[in-house]
Amino acid sequence: MCQLLGMNCNTPTDILFSFEGFHRRGGQTDHHADGWGIAFFENKGCRIFLDDKPSVESPVAHMVRNYPIKSENVIAHIRKATQGEVNLANTHPFMREMWGRYWIFAHNGNLENFQPEAGCHYNPVGGTDSERAFCHLMERLRAKWCQQPQLDELFAEVARLAGEVSSHGVFNFMLSNGEVLFAHCSTHLHYIIRQAPFNTAHLVDDDVSVDFASVTTPHDRVAVIATQPLTDNESWTQLVPGELLLFRDGSPLSQHLPG
Amino acid sequence: MCQLLGMNCNTPTDILFSFEGFHRRGGQTDHHADGWGIAFFENKGCRIFLDDKPSVESPVAHMVRNYPIKSENVIAHIRKATQGEVNLANTHPFMREMWGRYWIFAHNGNLENFQPEAGCHYNPVGGTDSERAFCHLMERLRAKWCQQPQLDELFAEVARLAGEVSSHGVFNFMLSNGEVLFAHCSTHLHYIIRQAPFNTAHLVDDDVSVDFASVTTPHDRVAVIATQPLTDNESWTQLVPGELLLFRDGSPLSQHLPG
Repeated sequence: MCQLLGMNCNTPTDILFSFEGFHRRGGQTDHHADGWGIAFFENKGCRIFLDDKPSVESPVAHMVRNYPIKSENVIAHIRKATQGEVNLANTHPFMREMWGRYWIFAHNGNLENFQPEAGCHYNPVGGTDSERAFCHLMERLRAKWCQQPQLDELFAEVARLAGEVSSHGVFNFMLSNGEVLFAHCSTHLHYIIRQAPFNTAHLVDDDVSVDFASVTTPHDRVAVIATQPLTDNESWTQLVPGELLLFRDGSPLSQHLPG
Repeated sequence: MCQLLGMNCNTPTDILFSFEGFHRRGGQTDHHADGWGIAFFENKGCRIFLDDKPSVESPVAHMVRNYPIKSENVIAHIRKATQGEVNLANTHPFMREMWGRYWIFAHNGNLENFQPEAGCHYNPVGGTDSERAFCHLMERLRAKWCQQPQLDELFAEVARLAGEVSSHGVFNFMLSNGEVLFAHCSTHLHYIIRQAPFNTAHLVDDDVSVDFASVTTPHDRVAVIATQPLTDNESWTQLVPGELLLFRDGSPLSQHLPG
């Protein structure tokens, strides 16, 4: 299994504090050492930093930890390989362009006997079940709509597709187009909303605290989503298996529950 | 205008020496300070490092200069904005997936009145003529072939499309799928092949030399392609306007000349 981290905000925010704890799970406080990656949206632009080295010893992670990139949507992933060898093509997050926007995807879980037919628009480059699932989602959405539909229609279709793919196994994922962030839970996913009045948070994985009141404005709102809570003195909400949440501007906007 | 740098090799090679001189053209020895980027293929995997800061002061460039990523195909670009504002979405190189491989593109030049119709498969995210041209190339190739064709057929079609787009202005570009690298010249593009017996090379942009004999094996062959020669003691070959070259394993494999 892998570790997922996501952030969705109403104002460009750096993820240094959360990433500080998260990257230690790649080979230090946890054993997910088969590469890692992080994608930052800056408006419609997107940059992904990938490394097939464990994140605790990666020069790219060292740079990311010291460069406060401000972003409204971030997805990060630390890999524990289940399917597909350890190489760059199999390192999450994955990116494709759809409807004139970049889409970013990362997956935690394992899908069995999942071999969707080759796409007209999107095909995997590497050998993971995860990239196959991402291309399948993109393919089905693109086949249904030539341009981006209304958000409620899109949300309903992503929920339907996520349910279908989940019949093949564990399918915790995050998906973002830089505007909204989808978070789907099969087994483990937690989130927290940070907004005024801000407090001090303390990392689980390291003895580091930050007083968010000193680095925010009263208007800021930030959703952080992670496989396991990153702090030990805040109250995280656990998603239930089968739940899909859509975050926009730092808040959950739409919710789909199983059944 | 911008600066292009490409590398195509028969064995994974780091680009540190060439990048050392090249990155100084982004705000120090030249005035191309509107962002920069570099893409490294590692087999079918690809990672792109982008920054909308000038390359001489970019933390990402600092990391790239100190991390010897070994790659068989590299494309780098330093931007001097002509069309499209300075932001991440307009920063080269651009990436799309086609036929189950990543494709990377960077452009030096300026295209006027170039507004191809919206694609079925590929659409630009940013506002540059360069990304429009890349999406147009991908769209036409993808519309013609559902799977990657023979290399000679692909080369002939890229040459034909490059000629068409060149009627709109200056279209120096590099394009790679991690297997081969296309280099097209409208105005300025030079290349050099380094192979045994290797010599010492000295940068134009900085007083740095490297003895390639000490860092290579006799079997290595490396093609370096750049807008302007990067070294002042080697013999670079200048492409002629309208020329397209296809590099594989560190050698020019196919050549298309204008007329």
